[in-house]
Amino acid sequence: MTIRWMAQPCATLNEAAGAAAFARQGQLTKPPGALGQLEDIAVHLAAMQGVERPAVDRAAIVIYAADHGIAAENVSAFPQAVTGEMVKNFARGGAAISVLAKTLNATLEVVNLGTVNDPGDWPNVVRAVVAPSTANFAVEPAMSEAQLAQALQAGRDSVLRALEHGAQIFIGGEMGIANTTSAAAVACALLGATPKELAGPGTGLDHAGVAHKAEVIQRALALHGFLPSNHKKWIGENTLKVLCHVGGFEIAALTGAYLAAAQNGLPVLVDGYICSVAALVAERFNPLVHDWLLYAHASAEPGHSRVLAALEAQPLLNLGMRLGEGSGAATALPLLRLACALHNGMATFAEAAVSEKI
Amino acid sequence: MTIRWMAQPCATLNEAAGAAAFARQGQLTKPPGALGQLEDIAVHLAAMQGVERPAVDRAAIVIYAADHGIAAENVSAFPQAVTGEMVKNFARGGAAISVLAKTLNATLEVVNLGTVNDPGDWPNVVRAVVAPSTANFAVEPAMSEAQLAQALQAGRDSVLRALEHGAQIFIGGEMGIANTTSAAAVACALLGATPKELAGPGTGLDHAGVAHKAEVIQRALALHGFLPSNHKKWIGENTLKVLCHVGGFEIAALTGAYLAAAQNGLPVLVDGYICSVAALVAERFNPLVHDWLLYAHASAEPGHSRVLAALEAQPLLNLGMRLGEGSGAATALPLLRLACALHNGMATFAEAAVSEKI
Repeated sequence: MTIRWMAQPCATLNEAAGAAAFARQGQLTKPPGALGQLEDIAVHLAAMQGVERPAVDRAAIVIYAADHGIAAENVSAFPQAVTGEMVKNFARGGAAISVLAKTLNATLEVVNLGTVNDPGDWPNVVRAVVAPSTANFAVEPAMSEAQLAQALQAGRDSVLRALEHGAQIFIGGEMGIANTTSAAAVACALLGATPKELAGPGTGLDHAGVAHKAEVIQRALALHGFLPSNHKKWIGENTLKVLCHVGGFEIAALTGAYLAAAQNGLPVLVDGYICSVAALVAERFNPLVHDWLLYAHASAEPGHSRVLAALEAQPLLNLGMRLGEGSGAATALPLLRLACALHNGMATFAEAAVSEKI
Repeated sequence: MTIRWMAQPCATLNEAAGAAAFARQGQLTKPPGALGQLEDIAVHLAAMQGVERPAVDRAAIVIYAADHGIAAENVSAFPQAVTGEMVKNFARGGAAISVLAKTLNATLEVVNLGTVNDPGDWPNVVRAVVAPSTANFAVEPAMSEAQLAQALQAGRDSVLRALEHGAQIFIGGEMGIANTTSAAAVACALLGATPKELAGPGTGLDHAGVAHKAEVIQRALALHGFLPSNHKKWIGENTLKVLCHVGGFEIAALTGAYLAAAQNGLPVLVDGYICSVAALVAERFNPLVHDWLLYAHASAEPGHSRVLAALEAQPLLNLGMRLGEGSGAATALPLLRLACALHNGMATFAEAAVSEKI
């Protein structure tokens, strides 16, 4: 399948701005490299934003919520009603990401792609309902091509709205009971990995629950023809077949959002397991998306490390978080802001009349 | 030697407040444990502050600056003049910690314990000069007992000032050319470790420089009678002998500050290598200091992991930072603030009418 907007090229990094920022880091009053990853981030953001002194004060957080037919296979520790209930909790300000967005002075938009338990209309909740749920991919494809196109577009639309509001950094998050099952299936298809490697407890399955989840994924991969031996096939437009068959609406929306952000030169801070799988899909679709993605944290979900390695990602935090909602990325946002503040605000050796290395 | 104030007991954690906070974490709208270390921090801070809902909005950062006689042994990549020059840079707002303190809305106090290149009087710089420098501990004890008492007291005084200003969390930092050499010597004495394990590049020594530094420390340990075989001896008041012989004024001040914070029930966020060594001294002096220390980051200085392990510390960040100045702790402060915001601001399952785990 071909979706016209997706074929547009990614923006390119501004190497001159990156080089200027790198040179500036070497002149600041500290031993070279002493701020570690904070220096790398400032230089990368400079290249992304095309300025020597970058900023991420205006942050846009968008949460994509959707239900999953695969929940019928008993792969989650929480009931499906929670997806819709949590949309209300996001809207009312009681969820983790609501508190984080407020504390961080970031905008928060919730995109409802379809929940079985419909929360109805809420301010700050964009209705982009594709269907109440994907189909159960243990027995049939999760969605049609038309539904996939709609979900991808919803992701792109939220990025375009964020750009209109002047966002300097984009954070995507997700909510959807059973979505670690879908994410693990997508990652297995793309990496040629086994469900045993990539299926984890999610919101809190016990050992037997995780084993059952891996079995469900194994059967689905066989049903849809995703085999370790053919995983290299799912690149470019073929990637979309994986989303159609075992993906989710919110995972597709995240993929569309990351691609649109890369096309429009908007830096992205990627959250945990599910978001990283969406990033993997986006990169398999167009490898140049890579330049625009920063990684916030290593999730406690055991499969995340394998996905991060495939993305050559070096996440900033490793706090044992596993909530989703974009909460890990929001938690890492202050590190990006401090990296910019240090880069922009520190004195140089010359300005401060401090002696340099012997 | 006996210093009367140091014998006062440490404050005790409020277990009831900790238990109430722990119970609250279990009711918030997220799978139990899904916020990882952020949950542990909120509960620990609650027990330290004796309230169910803790806060660290008012943060006090204090930087202790001092010169080291051991610098004469060519153990640093930077000239000794930098210590005094950086005091001016702190005061003028150009240093990393100046930028961080301002960005984080934290108070910043600099305590000058004695620099060879005297920066003179500056606003926000407290003069607590013990001597222009410690003695060269490669040939004689670094300081007298009277000097040690003065440095420890200077650390305590800054904590008492922070408490007067209503600080909810204390961050200590340090500046002193050659102070990783002193810190490594102290840690070797206390842990029975070899200088090869604990001496690193500091501000940027090359391989040969690090080997030379380890040799200098090895000779000094032998000279002062600090042997792997007797390292268990340096506990309680005996710990102070280690500071006298191979310590530094700023390391002693940090030790005094951590002890005073623990005595007064003020939570501490410990910075990197040198601060962790001061924390180790404080814990060997009184093991109950342990309850009051949170650890900000794993430093790129290779010996830090050994020191952290001895302290049973689980630092929040691992960003390859190695600047000192309290910069790693300041960088981790937003994580503590977000942990409190989440703990205090999230809705419970009951409040949000969200279904719980099946």
